[in-house]
Amino acid sequence: MDLFVAIDRTLEQSLRDQLYAGLRGAILDGRLAHGARLPATRALAKSHAISRFTVDDAYSRLIADGYATGRHGSGTYVAYAASERTPASDQPAPESIISADRDWSNWGDRLTALKSQPAPASPTYSFKQGVPALDHVPLAVWRRCQSKVGRSAASGLFGYGPPSGFEPLRRSISGYLARSRMLRCDPEQIVITSGTQEAIDLIARLFVDPGDAVVIEEPSYPAARRSFAAAGAELLLIPVDAEGLRVELLGRRESRATLIYVTPSHQFPTGGLLPLNRRRELIEWARETGTLIVEDDYDSEFRYGQRPIEALAALDPTIPGPRSVIYIGTFSKVLFPALRLGYIVLPPDLIDRVTAAKETAGRHAPTGEQATLAEFIDAGHFERHLARMRRMYAARSTAMLAAIDRWFGNRAQRHPAATTAGLHTLFRFELPYGEMDMVSRAAEAGILIEPASPCYAAPPAFTEALLGYGAMNEEQLVQGVQALARALLS
Amino acid sequence: MDLFVAIDRTLEQSLRDQLYAGLRGAILDGRLAHGARLPATRALAKSHAISRFTVDDAYSRLIADGYATGRHGSGTYVAYAASERTPASDQPAPESIISADRDWSNWGDRLTALKSQPAPASPTYSFKQGVPALDHVPLAVWRRCQSKVGRSAASGLFGYGPPSGFEPLRRSISGYLARSRMLRCDPEQIVITSGTQEAIDLIARLFVDPGDAVVIEEPSYPAARRSFAAAGAELLLIPVDAEGLRVELLGRRESRATLIYVTPSHQFPTGGLLPLNRRRELIEWARETGTLIVEDDYDSEFRYGQRPIEALAALDPTIPGPRSVIYIGTFSKVLFPALRLGYIVLPPDLIDRVTAAKETAGRHAPTGEQATLAEFIDAGHFERHLARMRRMYAARSTAMLAAIDRWFGNRAQRHPAATTAGLHTLFRFELPYGEMDMVSRAAEAGILIEPASPCYAAPPAFTEALLGYGAMNEEQLVQGVQALARALLS
Repeated sequence: MDLFVAIDRTLEQSLRDQLYAGLRGAILDGRLAHGARLPATRALAKSHAISRFTVDDAYSRLIADGYATGRHGSGTYVAYAASERTPASDQPAPESIISADRDWSNWGDRLTALKSQPAPASPTYSFKQGVPALDHVPLAVWRRCQSKVGRSAASGLFGYGPPSGFEPLRRSISGYLARSRMLRCDPEQIVITSGTQEAIDLIARLFVDPGDAVVIEEPSYPAARRSFAAAGAELLLIPVDAEGLRVELLGRRESRATLIYVTPSHQFPTGGLLPLNRRRELIEWARETGTLIVEDDYDSEFRYGQRPIEALAALDPTIPGPRSVIYIGTFSKVLFPALRLGYIVLPPDLIDRVTAAKETAGRHAPTGEQATLAEFIDAGHFERHLARMRRMYAARSTAMLAAIDRWFGNRAQRHPAATTAGLHTLFRFELPYGEMDMVSRAAEAGILIEPASPCYAAPPAFTEALLGYGAMNEEQLVQGVQALARALLS
Repeated sequence: MDLFVAIDRTLEQSLRDQLYAGLRGAILDGRLAHGARLPATRALAKSHAISRFTVDDAYSRLIADGYATGRHGSGTYVAYAASERTPASDQPAPESIISADRDWSNWGDRLTALKSQPAPASPTYSFKQGVPALDHVPLAVWRRCQSKVGRSAASGLFGYGPPSGFEPLRRSISGYLARSRMLRCDPEQIVITSGTQEAIDLIARLFVDPGDAVVIEEPSYPAARRSFAAAGAELLLIPVDAEGLRVELLGRRESRATLIYVTPSHQFPTGGLLPLNRRRELIEWARETGTLIVEDDYDSEFRYGQRPIEALAALDPTIPGPRSVIYIGTFSKVLFPALRLGYIVLPPDLIDRVTAAKETAGRHAPTGEQATLAEFIDAGHFERHLARMRRMYAARSTAMLAAIDRWFGNRAQRHPAATTAGLHTLFRFELPYGEMDMVSRAAEAGILIEPASPCYAAPPAFTEALLGYGAMNEEQLVQGVQALARALLS
């Protein structure tokens, strides 16, 4: 039995009395039926984080008061028969007990077992990765686009739309991908999602049964790993080096995988850029083994210096055989995360099922935001904004690197794979203590840094942290790094 | 082998030549390897909807040209060895063949097996159910709220938000439910979703493993049934009568169910209103059996005449025991579907997992739309809009009923359960032909009506259709009904 008594440590009432009252309430209204065995004291103590003595005390009092009976060595049993469940009472039932005996699905159980990172309280300096410059959202232009869409709004914008997304937006994205990523696709191959997260989740649902194998990079993006693990995947890890995924290690073991999830443009979190020859080899391997490649291109828009390498999805059609690459893009980094718009570009034979999955998952993305974004792209605002942001993030990246150099010297090094791209850099620290201490020392000084260990399946060999530089200006970054050095090196 | 050759009937090239070229291409580049058996002519003909003669012809030519060899009675085999797979070619691969041997998940397979209703071409008169008056969206006020939110926008509106939804919106909904539905809940019990559909999907994922039992009404809402069936549920049907679900029929068989999905305020599609005593009995049954009730309150805002009965979720806390009711509401009907905002009100012990599920499914609903809706509710616009719409829909309902009476006489009757509520009414027709003919006769006359059979698991005993009256004005409704009578009765 899964029994939970609400314990409030802020109350004056003792824990024993609260537990007693909760249990008695459950017995009185029949939730704990006559003859039912009460949970073992050890289990109840553990699940409520209270001492066994407290539980023993509460049980003794229940026995003394005649609500329960103790059989030595065999537990405590309910001795009181509630006359009947009297449900006609209009009095609210006591909320103190939730007998949470819920039949959760295996997916729900797995999801809960995978803890996500807790969000810290608002820090003075946040190096949180993946957050763009929220004070540079082109709000005025965005609202003009919103108004324009609103004025022209045929009532067609208000009804149910196609599950794959607003057609003009899919056309805008198709055009943008052709211009910026040399990725040619039909608007019909695009499905609009609630960001990268929904894209990954839909793919996991459609391709992963419990026990199926999924290949991921080690280290990798934790949220993706969580989605695949929640779907019940057996995760097969392939290490990355300074150039990203070590494609040559894909072998027999991996050949039975359904999917391989990769971040070739900016390996997450190391920053590696997968070279062209490895890209070809990866696609060839996928062709030979019948594996689908999930290419998460989460921030490839931001490269400062090097030219981008062709996306796997752009190379895919140049290699004979059925298409292998599912491409995921997002507007979370290039516009703002709260917009919740991303997209999948699909091999043609996957369109129908992914669209059906999206429909079941919530019908379609909100039309108003989609129409505004289409207008924003078509009017050229998007690519102008991108160019502006690219210059700004390049300067921010330079400022942060210089500050790290100045304040940390040889106590912090960029990860060997790091390229000047994206919105974060992975650093290796040389410190006389471990990662957990590093993060909490920073937190005590009001600084949020993200440890790298959640990205690793195995404990990492180095003390690493992801420092995001998208959301702070150059001055804040310099001050933040200085404060971080003070917190970690003093 | 799942082999697909793209056949384009608009091309001048004959089907035989297209098939031949596609197969030869596959042999040349090694996708059809030496020794591989070509699909049986019957199977290939069927999957491509072409004649077996065409396939036989193409195969004969492949044999004549030396690409294949025929072994009488045992099929056709590839006779040509591609020198090797030459993937380095920069030439785009021929797209003509997709060897779609994908490892779909069981969920994906089940989802595909459940066909959804095809959307018909734009009709002159659309009686599509569930569509509100799209030309009465309060756009001016909505845009004022949008601007107000935009002006006051702290950059907090642009970053990642809480998975359960924008906190001010959850407060607004909590207040609205208390005022309108006598449903008291904490904002923390609310999770914002992409409409009813995502709410149902999240619940199905969290509570249904393949083989689990789910109780549904017969007839019931097809999209909900599809979600539960895709999750692998065994569906246990309980019939409805003029007062909705026949709660007294819930017995031993149903007691092992994880969930029971109900529409007590306006039974879908019949329109029945579940009386208070049955509501209490249902909750008591859920308590006794440990079943969760999913209360889909999709259009209870629209009652014209009768007072609403307390929601199950409002009764739930008045009956002793752990909470049993998950309540689902939506803004699709009361504002507009393209907004994609709905919500779940949860028993407290379910909050964490449903929130985690929502996070995995796509992080959170878009913040801008949530903030606009919160402002819209808090400024009182929402309830004013509701009152206006209620009057309008009442008039539309009356107009449609009168027109049905006038033009159909005793050839059409409201379903015995129908109440004056919501946005549609279920009618029973007396016609000398069946449902399919009814729908296609209407379609030929440019009229969209929704047949009731997709709502039934077993073939319905009557010829029924749902007539939605939300999206047409009174004049259109009268003309539409007249045109329908002409199409069906002549």
